[in-house]
Amino acid sequence: MSQTIQTAPNLDSTATATDDRVKYGEREIENAQLITFPNPRPGRIYTISVVLPEFTCKCPFSGYPDFATMHVSYVPNDRIIELKAIKLYINSYRDQYISHEEVTNKILDDLVAACDPLEMTIKGDFQPRGNVHMVVEVKHVKAS
Amino acid sequence: MSQTIQTAPNLDSTATATDDRVKYGEREIENAQLITFPNPRPGRIYTISVVLPEFTCKCPFSGYPDFATMHVSYVPNDRIIELKAIKLYINSYRDQYISHEEVTNKILDDLVAACDPLEMTIKGDFQPRGNVHMVVEVKHVKAS
Amino acid sequence: MSQTIQTAPNLDSTATATDDRVKYGEREIENAQLITFPNPRPGRIYTISVVLPEFTCKCPFSGYPDFATMHVSYVPNDRIIELKAIKLYINSYRDQYISHEEVTNKILDDLVAACDPLEMTIKGDFQPRGNVHMVVEVKHVKAS
Amino acid sequence: MSQTIQTAPNLDSTATATDDRVKYGEREIENAQLITFPNPRPGRIYTISVVLPEFTCKCPFSGYPDFATMHVSYVPNDRIIELKAIKLYINSYRDQYISHEEVTNKILDDLVAACDPLEMTIKGDFQPRGNVHMVVEVKHVKAS
Amino acid sequence: MSQTIQTAPNLDSTATATDDRVKYGEREIENAQLITFPNPRPGRIYTISVVLPEFTCKCPFSGYPDFATMHVSYVPNDRIIELKAIKLYINSYRDQYISHEEVTNKILDDLVAACDPLEMTIKGDFQPRGNVHMVVEVKHVKAS
Amino acid sequence: MSQTIQTAPNLDSTATATDDRVKYGEREIENAQLITFPNPRPGRIYTISVVLPEFTCKCPFSGYPDFATMHVSYVPNDRIIELKAIKLYINSYRDQYISHEEVTNKILDDLVAACDPLEMTIKGDFQPRGNVHMVVEVKHVKAS
Amino acid sequence: MSQTIQTAPNLDSTATATDDRVKYGEREIENAQLITFPNPRPGRIYTISVVLPEFTCKCPFSGYPDFATMHVSYVPNDRIIELKAIKLYINSYRDQYISHEEVTNKILDDLVAACDPLEMTIKGDFQPRGNVHMVVEVKHVKAS
Amino acid sequence: MSQTIQTAPNLDSTATATDDRVKYGEREIENAQLITFPNPRPGRIYTISVVLPEFTCKCPFSGYPDFATMHVSYVPNDRIIELKAIKLYINSYRDQYISHEEVTNKILDDLVAACDPLEMTIKGDFQPRGNVHMVVEVKHVKAS
Amino acid sequence: MSQTIQTAPNLDSTATATDDRVKYGEREIENAQLITFPNPRPGRIYTISVVLPEFTCKCPFSGYPDFATMHVSYVPNDRIIELKAIKLYINSYRDQYISHEEVTNKILDDLVAACDPLEMTIKGDFQPRGNVHMVVEVKHVKAS
Amino acid sequence: MSQTIQTAPNLDSTATATDDRVKYGEREIENAQLITFPNPRPGRIYTISVVLPEFTCKCPFSGYPDFATMHVSYVPNDRIIELKAIKLYINSYRDQYISHEEVTNKILDDLVAACDPLEMTIKGDFQPRGNVHMVVEVKHVKAS
Repeated sequence: MSQTIQTAPNLDSTATATDDRVKYGEREIENAQLITFPNPRPGRIYTISVVLPEFTCKCPFSGYPDFATMHVSYVPNDRIIELKAIKLYINSYRDQYISHEEVTNKILDDLVAACDPLEMTIKGDFQPRGNVHMVVEVKHVKAS
Repeated sequence: MSQTIQTAPNLDSTATATDDRVKYGEREIENAQLITFPNPRPGRIYTISVVLPEFTCKCPFSGYPDFATMHVSYVPNDRIIELKAIKLYINSYRDQYISHEEVTNKILDDLVAACDPLEMTIKGDFQPRGNVHMVVEVKHVKAS
Repeated sequence: MSQTIQTAPNLDSTATATDDRVKYGEREIENAQLITFPNPRPGRIYTISVVLPEFTCKCPFSGYPDFATMHVSYVPNDRIIELKAIKLYINSYRDQYISHEEVTNKILDDLVAACDPLEMTIKGDFQPRGNVHMVVEVKHVKAS
Repeated sequence: MSQTIQTAPNLDSTATATDDRVKYGEREIENAQLITFPNPRPGRIYTISVVLPEFTCKCPFSGYPDFATMHVSYVPNDRIIELKAIKLYINSYRDQYISHEEVTNKILDDLVAACDPLEMTIKGDFQPRGNVHMVVEVKHVKAS
Repeated sequence: MSQTIQTAPNLDSTATATDDRVKYGEREIENAQLITFPNPRPGRIYTISVVLPEFTCKCPFSGYPDFATMHVSYVPNDRIIELKAIKLYINSYRDQYISHEEVTNKILDDLVAACDPLEMTIKGDFQPRGNVHMVVEVKHVKAS
Repeated sequence: MSQTIQTAPNLDSTATATDDRVKYGEREIENAQLITFPNPRPGRIYTISVVLPEFTCKCPFSGYPDFATMHVSYVPNDRIIELKAIKLYINSYRDQYISHEEVTNKILDDLVAACDPLEMTIKGDFQPRGNVHMVVEVKHVKAS
Repeated sequence: MSQTIQTAPNLDSTATATDDRVKYGEREIENAQLITFPNPRPGRIYTISVVLPEFTCKCPFSGYPDFATMHVSYVPNDRIIELKAIKLYINSYRDQYISHEEVTNKILDDLVAACDPLEMTIKGDFQPRGNVHMVVEVKHVKAS
Repeated sequence: MSQTIQTAPNLDSTATATDDRVKYGEREIENAQLITFPNPRPGRIYTISVVLPEFTCKCPFSGYPDFATMHVSYVPNDRIIELKAIKLYINSYRDQYISHEEVTNKILDDLVAACDPLEMTIKGDFQPRGNVHMVVEVKHVKAS
Repeated sequence: MSQTIQTAPNLDSTATATDDRVKYGEREIENAQLITFPNPRPGRIYTISVVLPEFTCKCPFSGYPDFATMHVSYVPNDRIIELKAIKLYINSYRDQYISHEEVTNKILDDLVAACDPLEMTIKGDFQPRGNVHMVVEVKHVKAS
Repeated sequence: MSQTIQTAPNLDSTATATDDRVKYGEREIENAQLITFPNPRPGRIYTISVVLPEFTCKCPFSGYPDFATMHVSYVPNDRIIELKAIKLYINSYRDQYISHEEVTNKILDDLVAACDPLEMTIKGDFQPRGNVHMVVEVKHVKAS
């Protein structure tokens, strides 16, 4: 079970940065789509909650990084969003300039468009700025 | 960004279980080796701690599953163990029959053999049995 | 009270693995049935909650192990499920390939079929993957 | 997997209490011995910690029940005490009249006699009486 | 204030066990009655909650001890149960063989009979068995 | 088991206050002595810790009540202080006018005089005044 | 800013106890009145919550001290109770003999009489006795 | 990246206090206005919560400083208040003499006037005085 | 006990601010001296810890308010600092412009000068700025 | 105090992204230098601790984002690093490809070069990957 591989990984960050073949993660984030699959029990009372503690974007005014934990909770209708797809979608905000209120609403718009849920709530819990802690919570209810 | 893929993933577990092409995770665990790479700062005072909350094996007497959080902490010498390699190695105990004391000692033996650290401690914090909670902690110090 | 037994238990895991006589736990899990007994107070307002922190199965795509805490809560009608039976039933998923959404729904289907409760909720709280934490909660209400 | 067993367990506590065939647990506690097995790695630095939250005995003055969590921690020498044996041994105090200080010392005496450890500590953390919380911690070090 | 009494308490548990004169606590538990007194403010909106963390009985199948925290909460009508009486009543289960569901219901029956409350809830929060945690909650509402 | 006693306890606090026969608790506190008994294992390494969360006295300047949790911890020599005696002793400060520093030292003086321990520490953790939280910790070590 | 005052405060508690001039705190408690002032925003939806962790009185049966945290919460009508007045009022129970149920109700009666609120709740959370924890919660709603 | 700047900042607090050019923070607080911007999703169900742990003002009776955490939560209508504007507004109370009840109501009045929300709640959670903890919560609902 | 005082406190903050007679708190802070009294047990091992969660000053660069919890801990020599004196001294920084490092050192200098302790530690735990949390801990040991 | 500014901030993220004038934060991070100032009390025992919960970089193998909380703790010698400078320096890793072990060592190298401390420790506490939690702690001690 235990064996030493002599060729060490290349830890020189400059060299690695120009080696495009291994940057599959960045390509996956760039090409991310909100893939869905059919709800295995349509009609059943049902809640899916996903907590994503690694949201980051940039402040549209200063360009400083912002950080948040995003909470997604929904009652599926016919389709469910793939867990990895949500993660890649959230990763795709890293270089965008967007405010707390705007991004929380945009995530709700995009996820509702992807899976047309009966209900969906997005709560953006942002890291403090000036020791002030802000939470934005937005909700969609499918028109009946 | 948002697009629906019509072909849903196959959720029939029987069919999936016989589809060997997608079981890359099991193959990775089976082939796991304790890959190491050179310590980037040999000589510096240095501690690496890894917490693995998903250890499971089987009781050698009853065959019932056992669960633990494994804590690995070491002072590297010349080589460092790859994080993913430790994870796959820990996953490889899933179908083994082994006692709490034996497995904690064996993990220490294997990781010491892989990277020859200056010091290493393994703490196995096992889920209660009969509401009795057991922790086994073993330590290796490199002979000077 | 205190006495030393000289013949030590066999800790060689290979040997033990082929000794079928002591693997009663695996046999119990394999033969598990959702045994029920009569509700001692039918008609009374009544909730039974069971938390099972040791659920594990395998990812249907990769074969990697998944872990969860399963929360079962129900209002019994005429019958109550034996506590040990629920535990063995949960243990029986260890080698199955099944997704988070599918397994949470299947547990609800099976337990409802076993005891026909007035209401039942299953909450599957899955260990993070890619540092993303997912919870699936499904509910059954007996048609009146 | 799901099946209803029609013959319900007998919940009449009086009847059950006289049915000696099923009281195997009481027999196991009565016959408990502090079974040990050989240390799989004699010579290695090594700590085994066991937490037993269900200790109960009776106050030698009033006969009222007392409750405690017992913490056993030791550095094994040649032998290790079986986990289930410790649990049954602790259960055997249920009907004994013994004070906080006496019982903590007696557990240390008995476990030291059973496995002759290099070091052993017993900490008895007793439930409050008169809202006063008492902890007794005793330690044995093997004479070198 | 400070004075040393030379005659030490008898800590020999065998001797003490046969000394019936000092076992007043056991006698109090044996003779316990659910004593009530008049509600000092009948008609006022009113909740009394009592938490008893030291419930123990025996499993009707194995005879092994079971442990629970019992939560009693009620809206009194004309009478209130004495706090010490509830404690002694709970202590009286120590040597009884009774299941989790049965004992939670029986405590509700007995306390309702004692004080005829407007509403009463009993929640039995049992110590894990096989690392499975069970809670039973039963409720009585006075017929209007 | 359940029975209603018609004669309710006297809840008129004025009347009760003049009924000296039932005030045994006040008499016990007034007559409290720091009773000790022999250490059951003299020579063993040994710590007894007692937490008393209900200390109260009066401020020597204003007469306002002060509150604290008192932590007593000691290594016994030949004698151990009875748990109930410590509690009554602590209760005896209720009507005394004494400062935080003085009372912590006085408790240490009195308990050392009572049992002549190898070591003893008293920590007085006082409730905040002006939202300022004060802790006084004093220690005695027996001269060898 | 920093200066040493040579005349130390008198820490002899006996002497201090007879020095009536400095006992202004006791006088303030003795003379306490439930002073109120006008609600600055009558008509607005409004809740004032006060937590008083230093309630103490004496048990009417034994004379032993009792301790509680008192939670006062109300929706004011025309008048608001001064914060210091509530504190002195709560202090005034120190030498009274009164049961848990009686004192919680009496505090509600007195505070309602003082400020005639739209709603008021008093929750008395009493320190455990015999390791049993009791909470009494009483509520007043102004008749409309 | 790393470089030492030889001219150290002036740490003499007296000198700094008279250097008006660098006191931009005080000027910002003095000139603070409750700036708003348009709600990016008018009509959507929507909650914005802001926690400000650094509120301080002065007691109108004694002049002693008071401290609180202010919780602002609202459902926006057409306009949203800028996060930095709320922070500067809260900072502007530092030298004001104002009571707990008055300031909580005034913050609600000012923020409602600034953004005309559908609903707004202000909760002032004040640091204890005399170990008494006070919370004032006021609510505005837009007349429909 | 309960009585309504008709003359309400003046809640108009402007008027109150000019009423110098009631601002005794500000005068006390202005005139604060670090008053000490003799250690009641010189020679005993002894620690006094004081936590002051309400420190505030102003940033010397921006003038923005800073907040911290100050932890004072010392081993007294001949003199002890009065608790209220420490509180007033800490309050006196409210309008000073001083950096985190400077103020923590200055508090240590001043308190050492006041009571000449055997040892003293000041830990300033500052509220985050830019979500960065800073703690400064400085220590004095009396030269022997 | 309250006024509505009619011109709303530009929330169109595309437009904002091309408006270079307002991106001062990105310029500050790009130009960040580890500015130091003289230690105000050279020779005193002294620890400065800084916690930075918003570290992010990219994995050198996959390009996926990594997140960590960085803990910096040091005993200053002649110079202290400005708090804002540390924050900007940490922000500068956002687009770098670097491993956990490498970045923790590099931060130590850079900060030691900037201020030549007596001692410095960097602890990188990385967000879990594959539910495995890694902490790297490295230490520098100035050669004497």
